[in-house]
Amino acid sequence: VVPLSPFLVVDTERLDRNIARVAEHARDAGVALRPHVKTHKSIEIARRQLAAGAVGITVATVGEAEVFVDGGATDVMVAYPLWLTAEAAARLRRLAARATVTIGVDSPTGAARAADLLAGTDVRLVVEVDSGHHRTGVPPAQAGVVARGAHGALPVVGAFTFPGHSYAPGAGPAVAAQEAMALAGAAASLRDHGLEPAVLSGGSTPSLADADTDVATELRPGVYVFGDAQQWELGSCSPDDVALTCRATVVSHAGGRLVLDSGSKVLGADRAPYSTGHGRLLDHPDARVVLLSEHHAVVELDDPLPPLGATVRVVPNHVCNAVNLVDELWATTPGGDLVSWAVAARGRNG
Amino acid sequence: VVPLSPFLVVDTERLDRNIARVAEHARDAGVALRPHVKTHKSIEIARRQLAAGAVGITVATVGEAEVFVDGGATDVMVAYPLWLTAEAAARLRRLAARATVTIGVDSPTGAARAADLLAGTDVRLVVEVDSGHHRTGVPPAQAGVVARGAHGALPVVGAFTFPGHSYAPGAGPAVAAQEAMALAGAAASLRDHGLEPAVLSGGSTPSLADADTDVATELRPGVYVFGDAQQWELGSCSPDDVALTCRATVVSHAGGRLVLDSGSKVLGADRAPYSTGHGRLLDHPDARVVLLSEHHAVVELDDPLPPLGATVRVVPNHVCNAVNLVDELWATTPGGDLVSWAVAARGRNG
Repeated sequence: VVPLSPFLVVDTERLDRNIARVAEHARDAGVALRPHVKTHKSIEIARRQLAAGAVGITVATVGEAEVFVDGGATDVMVAYPLWLTAEAAARLRRLAARATVTIGVDSPTGAARAADLLAGTDVRLVVEVDSGHHRTGVPPAQAGVVARGAHGALPVVGAFTFPGHSYAPGAGPAVAAQEAMALAGAAASLRDHGLEPAVLSGGSTPSLADADTDVATELRPGVYVFGDAQQWELGSCSPDDVALTCRATVVSHAGGRLVLDSGSKVLGADRAPYSTGHGRLLDHPDARVVLLSEHHAVVELDDPLPPLGATVRVVPNHVCNAVNLVDELWATTPGGDLVSWAVAARGRNG
Repeated sequence: VVPLSPFLVVDTERLDRNIARVAEHARDAGVALRPHVKTHKSIEIARRQLAAGAVGITVATVGEAEVFVDGGATDVMVAYPLWLTAEAAARLRRLAARATVTIGVDSPTGAARAADLLAGTDVRLVVEVDSGHHRTGVPPAQAGVVARGAHGALPVVGAFTFPGHSYAPGAGPAVAAQEAMALAGAAASLRDHGLEPAVLSGGSTPSLADADTDVATELRPGVYVFGDAQQWELGSCSPDDVALTCRATVVSHAGGRLVLDSGSKVLGADRAPYSTGHGRLLDHPDARVVLLSEHHAVVELDDPLPPLGATVRVVPNHVCNAVNLVDELWATTPGGDLVSWAVAARGRNG
């Protein structure tokens, strides 16, 4: 039974097309694809990515890793500099008995702690380096020092970076070049410390097309499965690629504007500096969501207003946060019905 | 068992103090208090508000109304111009058999539709008017015309407004005056159409202290129970009133800054134009969250950095959206333990 609006709908045909296109890109480039599943948090979609050739998956938290290993994943990388508590370590130990588990570190202290708490397991470490996004990650030249923190108690298999500064108009090519430089620098630093890196992992959706696959061995894009208003406005997807929309209802014409029931509690409140509004309307590309509150999206558009009660398809600015607000995605079927896919890892923040 | 960080903690003593203070304010002013429970979505907290003297509760959706009536609420107002589907109407009919139910309308068409679909029930209508926030609601002088849309099939008991433009520095007093004018105008319009309004409902947390209780019969603040960084920065609460924080862990010192695991997937991504960052640190009032992504909060502070692994208390910008991201709140007890309160209406967007 489809719920009252607003709810999120997946265009399964577009989803499969996006999955296939990026899988082919990685295959042609000769690199591994390890999609970040924080975007969709759904077993059903991870299965499709793995079936299309992904070598494994990327997650952000221990809780996400558990959900996907329960769902059948056998190779999981936590692309995050985890600071392990005893409980987190115990949970990772149990996971490592069931799947290949790789976790991030970005300090000698963090690496030592992971090595101490996980010694004797098959957990692998990767060092996070900063390629210019300036969030987490050490400068590439320090990768070896971080790796040495693990004092040989756990294998350090390589380095990773998230080139998140690709989220700016036109930034893709320059950021991809920085990503390659950071990964090459990390590799050199690891070699200086006697470690041959098997994994040099990068990738974000906006920088994907420009990623230097002579340097990177692996790419970890997430958003490409769905696209969203950010990718649309950055030019890294077209509106025809957008595979997830919010089904919203016109509840008011107050002030001569369109008011929809899709607020920040279903779209998320993300608004990047380059965003033109709080989301886009798939069937009204010139419309803009000018005001967003928890249960209202106020839209300005030049077209005649859709009538009260009409259904409108809204593209969230940042699809990862929209998905994390709902317990189910409603996926289209060839027969025209909608089927429910659980957002199995929703809210798994820790 | 307390989860891995990040998670949300309620300071129960501060919560009870906030509930008592606003209940007393309403009692002293001789107006009804009908708190908006979308802020906390928790039966436990609604019970405390009702025990302190609230006449009923306010919700935004049919799904929220159902959760709180299941939890014991007997008087629920949906402060939203619902556009009823047959299914929504059926659910409201069932609710109206168990509780006093009032729903919003802001068009003659919407009122007629509600009257047609709910005729024969005890559901009551209230007309939403715009007091200057310019979201939903008709101009006050049109309240009577909207009410007439219900053609006598359902009782129209009054009018309501949300003075949401109070969310700007120093705006409280002027916005409260506009709210009073809008409610008085709505009352006049209803009387012109032969309807004596029993309910003139207003109220937001930033305008609460200035609300004109000679005009309003009822106030519907929500955020006051917890406070948040927005209220702190608007001056409508002090840091000592903040009753909900996110327990976060220091995961990195990359770039000489503090990186916490409390990202937008637990804090929400709200950032008002007047906000000084993406949230505040309760114990470091000069610190600012300068970058927020899904699982990272990057903090700049002049104090010495708390060590890796340290716990930090983060105040979300907008607490309503933070609460809606988690399934449980962890409430402090006199004994120093944390107990779990379910966010029972989490994700009930329709």
